[in-house]
Order: sequence, then structure tokens, then C-alpha cells
Amino acid sequence: MPELRGEVSLRMRRLSAAMQGAGMEAMLIASNANLYYASGRMFRGYVYVTADGKVIYFVVRPADFEPDPDMVVIRKPELIPAELERLGLPMPANVGLELDVLSYSDTERLRKVFGTSEMRNASPLLRQCRQVKTEREISMMREDGVHQMEVYRKIDQLYKRDMTDVEFQIAIEQLLRKEGNLGFLRVSGPLMEINLGSVIAGPNADAPGPYEFAMGGAGVSPALPCGACGEIMRVGEAVMVDVNGCFNGYQTDMTRVWSIGRLPDLAYKAHECSRRILRRLEKEALPGVEVGELYRMAEAIVAEEGLEAYFMGHRQHAPFIGHGVGIELNETPPVTGRCRDLLKEGMTLALEPKFVLPGVGAVGVENTYVVRPSGLENLTPAPEEISDLL
Amino acid sequence: MPELRGEVSLRMRRLSAAMQGAGMEAMLIASNANLYYASGRMFRGYVYVTADGKVIYFVVRPADFEPDPDMVVIRKPELIPAELERLGLPMPANVGLELDVLSYSDTERLRKVFGTSEMRNASPLLRQCRQVKTEREISMMREDGVHQMEVYRKIDQLYKRDMTDVEFQIAIEQLLRKEGNLGFLRVSGPLMEINLGSVIAGPNADAPGPYEFAMGGAGVSPALPCGACGEIMRVGEAVMVDVNGCFNGYQTDMTRVWSIGRLPDLAYKAHECSRRILRRLEKEALPGVEVGELYRMAEAIVAEEGLEAYFMGHRQHAPFIGHGVGIELNETPPVTGRCRDLLKEGMTLALEPKFVLPGVGAVGVENTYVVRPSGLENLTPAPEEISDLL
Repeated sequence: MPELRGEVSLRMRRLSAAMQGAGMEAMLIASNANLYYASGRMFRGYVYVTADGKVIYFVVRPADFEPDPDMVVIRKPELIPAELERLGLPMPANVGLELDVLSYSDTERLRKVFGTSEMRNASPLLRQCRQVKTEREISMMREDGVHQMEVYRKIDQLYKRDMTDVEFQIAIEQLLRKEGNLGFLRVSGPLMEINLGSVIAGPNADAPGPYEFAMGGAGVSPALPCGACGEIMRVGEAVMVDVNGCFNGYQTDMTRVWSIGRLPDLAYKAHECSRRILRRLEKEALPGVEVGELYRMAEAIVAEEGLEAYFMGHRQHAPFIGHGVGIELNETPPVTGRCRDLLKEGMTLALEPKFVLPGVGAVGVENTYVVRPSGLENLTPAPEEISDLL
Repeated sequence: MPELRGEVSLRMRRLSAAMQGAGMEAMLIASNANLYYASGRMFRGYVYVTADGKVIYFVVRPADFEPDPDMVVIRKPELIPAELERLGLPMPANVGLELDVLSYSDTERLRKVFGTSEMRNASPLLRQCRQVKTEREISMMREDGVHQMEVYRKIDQLYKRDMTDVEFQIAIEQLLRKEGNLGFLRVSGPLMEINLGSVIAGPNADAPGPYEFAMGGAGVSPALPCGACGEIMRVGEAVMVDVNGCFNGYQTDMTRVWSIGRLPDLAYKAHECSRRILRRLEKEALPGVEVGELYRMAEAIVAEEGLEAYFMGHRQHAPFIGHGVGIELNETPPVTGRCRDLLKEGMTLALEPKFVLPGVGAVGVENTYVVRPSGLENLTPAPEEISDLL
């Protein structure tokens, strides 16, 4: 795949440049999400990258991987030093490992492989590099958005009177999968566990949960307390749909709201406030702007409309209105008031200013955006109004 | 939930006893699967357990967790020492952390919380404790099995001529979800990534993959190279269904095979060989038997029938015929030839002697069992014959 080779070498050149800036001589990538980033496909193994631009793919499985001049099949990581020597590469003075991702035991094993090389944390550098997508990555996310919007367009047709939220979610999942959704997504860290997505209706939106999602939901089992809870969706309830957008290893993150009949006026007001926030951020989120500023702009609009009590939750509040998104659902930067990162061209952000209204449910819109020189490009430009299912 | 309280205190008493045996004074549980084990529900936080039987639940989220005398709401783990002091508990001389599961960074953070306490690896002890299920855990797995069998019973009805393997899988997923499947399962470690399961038909069974599953499959995306590949299922192909059995946080693991029309005789011979292996192991897998012995018995039967070339793969071979199963799909012990663990009453094992026949596909049966004094109890006792979909 020559096109893919050019793409991954672009990514690795960017990574090498970042390593030079950070004084990191070499890095050994070992986690699934970063292996996919570094190669464009999942394999079991390691990618060794140096600050001066060497990239070696050490493949454990599958053993009959397509032959490639940069690939070395190895049985275990302990064989890496001998292979580096064979390739004429010196042991590095320091080596970056993904300390925020690899288990302590796996890290210690890899640290020993590099003997006296000083161990550094490669995770922050990799997160920063992955924040800014290449045009090919953006086009994969745009493709995700097209499929995800196509599913959302058909959601209206799935509703039947007296359906439970779980039944509604199962019908949406079926649409997603038929549209090519992989039925899987990668998340970073242990603070998110979910099935194909979150469908929360009515009072369930107010159930506090253990996870770092913007919204909670009680779920149907104490083993997975999030999302739909199995209750019948009743007249006067808002139904928030925030489901899996992974069709190719990247993903868009998108939320829309439906209603069962007419909602209280406050729900429409809060929903329109969410849209107003998005319209504002679409213009103001320019390269160079501090991420925290987006959060503060949103807060100011919410305060103007007097909706603070409902913003990003009611019984339990999420401290962010968005997050990076790409290979993983929860990439950096988090869009919190405290985030000092500056927006860069090519960053992809999911923005999701949402409100929970007691007894009614959750409202608000989420889109996935790319930071462009003149503002945000929306990868999920589908109708945003609350649509009535009745 | 008084019943659940009794259950988790039984589990924690067993854990404390194991800690005494290992000279581990205290343990701080922080990973999702072990938090669920230690509490019977998912929350964000920590469980502090001592060898002399104290158990403290430190809860970060949800903040309005049901009040409980053993629970302490904390904002961050750095507050644990002060809480222990308040409770009159001394800092331990050594503390076990889940080094095989927690990231290096999270581990270092928790290590600092315990200051001068010597850090030990809690993962092996927890794995051993979790191997032997309580009767309540077994009853949850039995419930999983009932639901999973009910889904498998209906699979025949889903087939339509010229269906792709992905379409067949999506139809099975729908059945699973309607039967109450959580649409999610926990796996241990990074070597397994999958959606709702594996449906592999025909030559796709021979596609080598990067993961540690018994069978591979090419998948539909380089981002998730496993399972169904999108090909039409053709006459003469075997279709192996090995899908998610998680209905309550525990799971059964179960495989059955269907055919599109008549298969070559070799396929039925290999399938019957798998069943013969299971019948033998059901009798021989008694408490006290070495796990590796199960593998060797299977190998001997395969050799007797001259099926070595196809056993556990053809182009790529899996080195095991089964594994522990429970909260996670891939628990210990692995049923490999090298495993020296001894079977214990109450252990739960998925046994899956399988064969890959080039051009035909994968055959073989997988059941989930409990080790009982007189042999294995089958939690998935459903018909095992290859059933024709045409």
C-alpha cells in the first residue's frame, strides 16, 4: 500500500521532529492505538522510532505479515537490541516508553530490554502528535461522519410507541452495524467503558455514573452502569443519542436529541443554548486560541441564559464541554476551563455543550470539528433541531 | 443489597487469606475488573484490603454512592493515608498494587501514596483468587449460559441465501442484545480487541491475526483485523460462531458451528474429534489434575486421529485449547501444554479444541465449564452437532 506508506512516514517524521524538540533519542511504541497510528493497521509488536528519523517495525504477529524492508519479525521484545545492532543502530542514551498506557509490568520488561538507556515517558509526545491530524486522517474522520450522519438520519423511523430506551438503542445499533460501523471503538485509559453508545431518556439522564462521560445514565447492570436503563420512553421525555462513530479505526463523535411528544419550554431553550454555544465556538476556535477559552465562552453564554444549574449535568456535573477525538474517543485536549493548550490547525475536537433537566432528560448537540485557519470545519453537519418521535 | 454484601465479604475473606499466605500486608485494588470483583458493581475508586481482614471502599465516583459504613468518599488517592489514620489503620509495611494491569504512571502515583511501604505485585494473587468462583459467581455464569444458549438456539432462523458473514453476525448481535447481552465484555490485557464476537466462515478462518484469540479472521478493517470479513458465505463452508456471552458482568464463552450445505467428510471428522476431546476432558478434569495435562490429553486424541495439521489453526496455530473465564474473557489458567497450575473445585474454564480446514473453515465446539469434584459441569449444554443452514 504505497499511499499508506507515504502517510505513515509523514506521521513518523512529525514524531521524530517532536522527539528532537524534546531531546528524546528513541521511542518504542507498544500500545494498540499508537501501533495503529504508526502503521495504519493493527499488528502485535513494536515500532522503534529515533529522533533522527529511523523507523523499524518489529512484528510479533501475524508472522506472515506482508514483507516490507522496514519490518523485522521477532518473537519477543528481548530480541530487539540484537536486531538494532544488526541494523547498525546504536542503543539510545534515552528511550521513550508509553508510561501512561503500558502496564507497570510490561514497562519494566521493556525497560530491561534497553538496559542502561534512561527511560522517559513517551505518552505526552504521542498524544500531542496525534492531536493534529494529517489530511488523510481527517478524510477518514470525514468518512466516519458521513456514515454516522446517515444512521442518525434514519433514527426517526426506528421508534415505536412504548419502546424502552434499550430497545431503541438496539435498533440504532443495528443501523450502525449495517452502515459499516466496526462495533468497536478504542478509548484511552480505564475511565470509560461502554457498549455501542449512550441512549439516555428522561430521568435516567440524571443518574450519576462512575465514568468520565459527559452524561451518565444508570445502565441495565451494576457491571456497566452507564447509558440506557431499560425504562419505557414516555411522553415529555428527551432522548439523547450519542453512539459509536467508528467505521474505519477513526471516529466521529456526534449527539442529537429526539423527543417523545412536546417537551417543556426549558428543554428547547437549553437545546438552543447548546447550538448558540457551538455557533460561537465554530467562529472563535481559531489556531492559537487557548482551549480553556472555549470553555469559558460556553460558560458565559450559559450564565447569560441562566442555565448554570443544568449545564453538563444536574446531580453530577462533567467538568468539560468537549475533547480531542480520532483513533480514540477521548483524546487530548480536554476542553475544560483549566486547559492551557493552544488550538492548532488540524486538531479534531468533539464539542458537546449539554444540559440535564430533571425529569425531562438531556438536551444539547455534539459535533466533531477540525480546527481550520478560519474557524471550525464541522465533520457532522446534520440537522440539529430536536425532532419529535411521536 | 444484603445478599451482595455477604457475597463480597466472602470474596474479600478469601483474598485476605491468600494475602496472609503470601505475606502481603495490604492491597489497593484500582482496576475496573477487580473493583467489580471486590464490590459487585462498577465504581471509580479503590478498595483497600488488609491481610487481617479489613476492607475499606474508597469511592471517587459517583459521589452520591449509596451510604455504607465501609465506604469513604475521596476526591483523589492521595487522601487515602489520612483516611486510614482516621480509621485507626497503620500504614502497611508492604502494599500490593495491580502491576500487571495499572499503567506505569498510575502505579507510580499510587506507590507515592504509600510512601515508604514496599510495593508488591497484587495481580497474581487476584488472578488466583478470581480463578475459583463462589457459588454466586457460578450462578451468574449459569444465567449467562442460559441466555447464550437461547440465542444460539435461534441462529438457524437468521440465515438467508448469499448472506455475508458480517450480515449474519449483525443478525446474531441483534438476537444477543434482545436477549439481554450487555453489548460489552471485559478482557484482560491489550492482546484482545473485538466487537460483539467472532463469526468466521470458510477460508477466512485461515487468516492469521495479531490477537490472542483461538481463531483469527481478517475482519473488515485494518484497524480491527479479526472475525468476519464481509465475504458471502458459500456452499461447502463451515461457519463458526463464537460470540459475546456477557449478560451480567460475568460471561460464558461458547462456540458452535453451522454449515452452508454439506461439508467435506474431514470437517465432520475434525468436529467429532473436538467433541471427543471435550467428553474426555469432562471426565478427567478433576480437582488436583495439572492444567497442562488437559492439553496433552487433547493433543494425544488429535494425534490418534491424524488431525495435527489442522489443530488450533492451520497457517497460524494457537498454543492453547482453553482458558479461565468469568468477569474477563481471558482469565487464568490458560490451558496450554506448559501450564503447571492444578485444577481446583469451582474453577471455570472455557474449553475450545478447534480445527481449521483450508478452504472449508473452522470446526469444533467450545463450552464453559465448572470444575466439580466428579468432573466438569457444563454451563453451556446445547446441541453440538454441525447444523446445516441451507
